[in-house]
Amino acid sequence: MGANSSTALGAASESSDGRIPAEHPGVTDLFAVLAYGEISAFYRLAEEAKLSPTLRGKVAVAKMAGNESEHFKTLEQALADRGVDVFDAMAPFVRALDAYHASTDPSTWLESMVKFYVGDGIAADFYTEIAGALAPEVADVVRDVLAETSHSEFVIEEVRTAVAQNRSERDRLALWGRRLLGEAITQAQYVMAQRDELTELVLVATGDLNGIATLFEHMQNSHAERMRVLGLA
Amino acid sequence: MGANSSTALGAASESSDGRIPAEHPGVTDLFAVLAYGEISAFYRLAEEAKLSPTLRGKVAVAKMAGNESEHFKTLEQALADRGVDVFDAMAPFVRALDAYHASTDPSTWLESMVKFYVGDGIAADFYTEIAGALAPEVADVVRDVLAETSHSEFVIEEVRTAVAQNRSERDRLALWGRRLLGEAITQAQYVMAQRDELTELVLVATGDLNGIATLFEHMQNSHAERMRVLGLA
Repeated sequence: MGANSSTALGAASESSDGRIPAEHPGVTDLFAVLAYGEISAFYRLAEEAKLSPTLRGKVAVAKMAGNESEHFKTLEQALADRGVDVFDAMAPFVRALDAYHASTDPSTWLESMVKFYVGDGIAADFYTEIAGALAPEVADVVRDVLAETSHSEFVIEEVRTAVAQNRSERDRLALWGRRLLGEAITQAQYVMAQRDELTELVLVATGDLNGIATLFEHMQNSHAERMRVLGLA
Repeated sequence: MGANSSTALGAASESSDGRIPAEHPGVTDLFAVLAYGEISAFYRLAEEAKLSPTLRGKVAVAKMAGNESEHFKTLEQALADRGVDVFDAMAPFVRALDAYHASTDPSTWLESMVKFYVGDGIAADFYTEIAGALAPEVADVVRDVLAETSHSEFVIEEVRTAVAQNRSERDRLALWGRRLLGEAITQAQYVMAQRDELTELVLVATGDLNGIATLFEHMQNSHAERMRVLGLA
């Protein structure tokens, strides 16, 4: 992290109740990376719906993508409330998120479903942990856009049914899930390295470097649990 | 229309206040064709967003498509309230709506924007006219899913700006708009011819064959007005 930014940010790092105040400049980055995450997930889902063998699958995906669109609007408004244009704010995150999606491009409908469930889960773990350290009005926005939806049930059902009768599919998707976790962590680190304000916010939210290590351990445990739920453990 | 269906439907055609009662079997068809319309528009929009030269365009499209997804959920619930599965109900309309989209596949971003604005408008004119004759609880659903959104402004701005400086683009898009109207009317007639219940509902709603002719005249006038708003008159 640059010396000048840590000086500038130091004063705004904690409010009197120990929460990171809404004015912390890392909050803008946090909303922005989430916003571009929603837009890129929207288009990935819409594209991958072509892999669906049924209209039922396409409808489920249209609903999931519709939720991403709603979440984007929430974040756009939250940024506007801070006087920030969503397009300016998202620009620094386009490359890392596009790279994540390019490196985890599903080639089958089931890979797409696993990516949706597992990728959403990894992101939710990370941001929910951060949200716990944020001023309530900021934490509310983050939790709102990460709220798990009923569509997870559709995904779980699709994957569990498919792998219950097919061991090689199960093994393949288990490897796929591991790769998703690896790529998500790689790209998250890349995002952090690019944005001093966001790094500072994450460090304050998790306590210190040990806190980050603990967070990543939690994320790996949750990931393992999600793989078990999908029948891929 | 088959003789047996007109007999069966006759009794349910009008309630005491002169409105078509919610129990009319054509209402199920009406909700179903609207539902598949939303899903097919969702995927068309998401696909055509690739033609957008800017992230701003992609975000605008994701919001429009998100609205289609919300509207689908409303219609799915309205059908469920009638004890009807949305997938069963949509099945008869898949071919006609897919054919409409296949015959009006935009090759440029501006064609896509014109199609969205003009196609939505044609559909809204038609269904709003029908809604006026329906029981209030049915009319509310129809109007809810047809409500014009603020995204129209984005489309108008995109198209007007582009054609103001480019006469050949304007002429090309004017022809495109005319073709959209023709294809929409062709496919609407095809849908009607397939579904006795829907035909009966439209006939009762418009009064008679003269009423249908008047409705189509209104639609052509509104279409001309929309073309003018887009700078394509």
